Amino acid sequence: MADFEFDAATELAGDGPVFDASLPDGWGAETVNGGFMLALLTRAMGRIVPFPDPIVVSGLYLRPGFPGPAEIRTELIRAGRTTAFAQASLWAGSAGSAEGGGREAVRATAAFADLDAAGDMSGPVLTGGTAPTLPPPEECVGIEPGEARGISIADRFEYRYTEPPGWFRDKPSGNPAAEFYMRFRDGREPDMASLPLIVDAASPAVLEVGVRRVTTIELTVHLRARPAPGWLSCRTQTRFLSDGGYHEEDFEVWDSAGTLVAQSRQLALVLK
Amino acid sequence: MADFEFDAATELAGDGPVFDASLPDGWGAETVNGGFMLALLTRAMGRIVPFPDPIVVSGLYLRPGFPGPAEIRTELIRAGRTTAFAQASLWAGSAGSAEGGGREAVRATAAFADLDAAGDMSGPVLTGGTAPTLPPPEECVGIEPGEARGISIADRFEYRYTEPPGWFRDKPSGNPAAEFYMRFRDGREPDMASLPLIVDAASPAVLEVGVRRVTTIELTVHLRARPAPGWLSCRTQTRFLSDGGYHEEDFEVWDSAGTLVAQSRQLALVLK
Repeated sequence: MADFEFDAATELAGDGPVFDASLPDGWGAETVNGGFMLALLTRAMGRIVPFPDPIVVSGLYLRPGFPGPAEIRTELIRAGRTTAFAQASLWAGSAGSAEGGGREAVRATAAFADLDAAGDMSGPVLTGGTAPTLPPPEECVGIEPGEARGISIADRFEYRYTEPPGWFRDKPSGNPAAEFYMRFRDGREPDMASLPLIVDAASPAVLEVGVRRVTTIELTVHLRARPAPGWLSCRTQTRFLSDGGYHEEDFEVWDSAGTLVAQSRQLALVLK
Repeated sequence: MADFEFDAATELAGDGPVFDASLPDGWGAETVNGGFMLALLTRAMGRIVPFPDPIVVSGLYLRPGFPGPAEIRTELIRAGRTTAFAQASLWAGSAGSAEGGGREAVRATAAFADLDAAGDMSGPVLTGGTAPTLPPPEECVGIEPGEARGISIADRFEYRYTEPPGWFRDKPSGNPAAEFYMRFRDGREPDMASLPLIVDAASPAVLEVGVRRVTTIELTVHLRARPAPGWLSCRTQTRFLSDGGYHEEDFEVWDSAGTLVAQSRQLALVLK
């Protein structure tokens, strides 16, 4: 697994409930990406629960995460017959610190289940929405590695747009919404473990209304299906940006088979 | 404050970080309403944080809550300059038990701030959506107390619809979405403390596709503004119901001044 960047970056040492990890360079911008940290905590919680699939994960962002050694403290809250619940905290050093374990940066909770077993239940199925309608990826435009300066996480992914984002050309479109393709640049296929990262690894929709910097306060991800291999089709949107700078960002991830695999919403704050 | 049902039902004893409370009769259906329990935990966290406004609250539903004595254990995770983070757990007895403190039923996390201070920040404002368009409440139809049999929480509120919900007439409409008014039946005005309840106190949208019973796994509420007095306009929708029964329910609450005051999303599961 650690042949791929994401798996190497989220490696855990120890048998739990406390794991050693590290917050890597190259997975953020000014600080480590919030979705990356949530994916790291989800992987740790996955190690202590008896079911394979995270179905909902929530993270509360207490402090920025800086690259360096980190400690993850997990707790199995409850393992029921069909659902297990866990909590995890990421403890990391402060800026420029070589020491891990210093301060709590993210606290996450999650529910896990076995989606194979859940699929046995019959009942109505609704799809009140459709995957983004995009031309084939090879007809879309991308961003070259290093082109999004200072945003190292953009180098970990390939993005494909019908046209380059407005903010990227210093011409915000005024429309805080986007549809595009994403995949890991190194060929790693998407899975449940990487979805909490993916929902936070594209540019914030509010960049298109002239906002330059935002910080995530809380991020909740619903994981609805194990993604099929191939390109993911993504849709992001912010509808309500309050006077104080608070706004939601909604993100949908659809797999190459046309299945909605993740829905997320975060509460974020515009930074001056 | 305890002149009103909601305030009496969410009364806390003690100075924290552990509070005694009780899960009351009359605020649920088969078990105590999930939004009610989240509001109770939000009130307890509000007692230990230095800011007045919960801006995001997430609850993980571990076990059903039954009426009876309960204990709330709170933790101040971090009090920063503008945002404070807290956690709370609700411990309650099992069905028919007279003893509280038995098992953890709900675990919640929240961020608090002072929305007055946040409002001082200038920046773009977006309203990419509108309040439900409903005739005046007096031209709408309601449900009489006791009419929603077995659903005691429906007696705590007044609901006003353009026409009675389809599920209520045993004629599900097939459209898992609704717009309607809500207010406390006893005249209590809405506030931040009651919004986590309100987003979960109307009938699930999926009842309109023939589903009869659902359970909440996780509920996250974004609280965007302190509501003005008067009727609340609400909008609920489920777009994606998976084969296994998992579905999201989105809920918006708009106040009488036309401001979006809360947005929530829950991951819920259809029960057989």
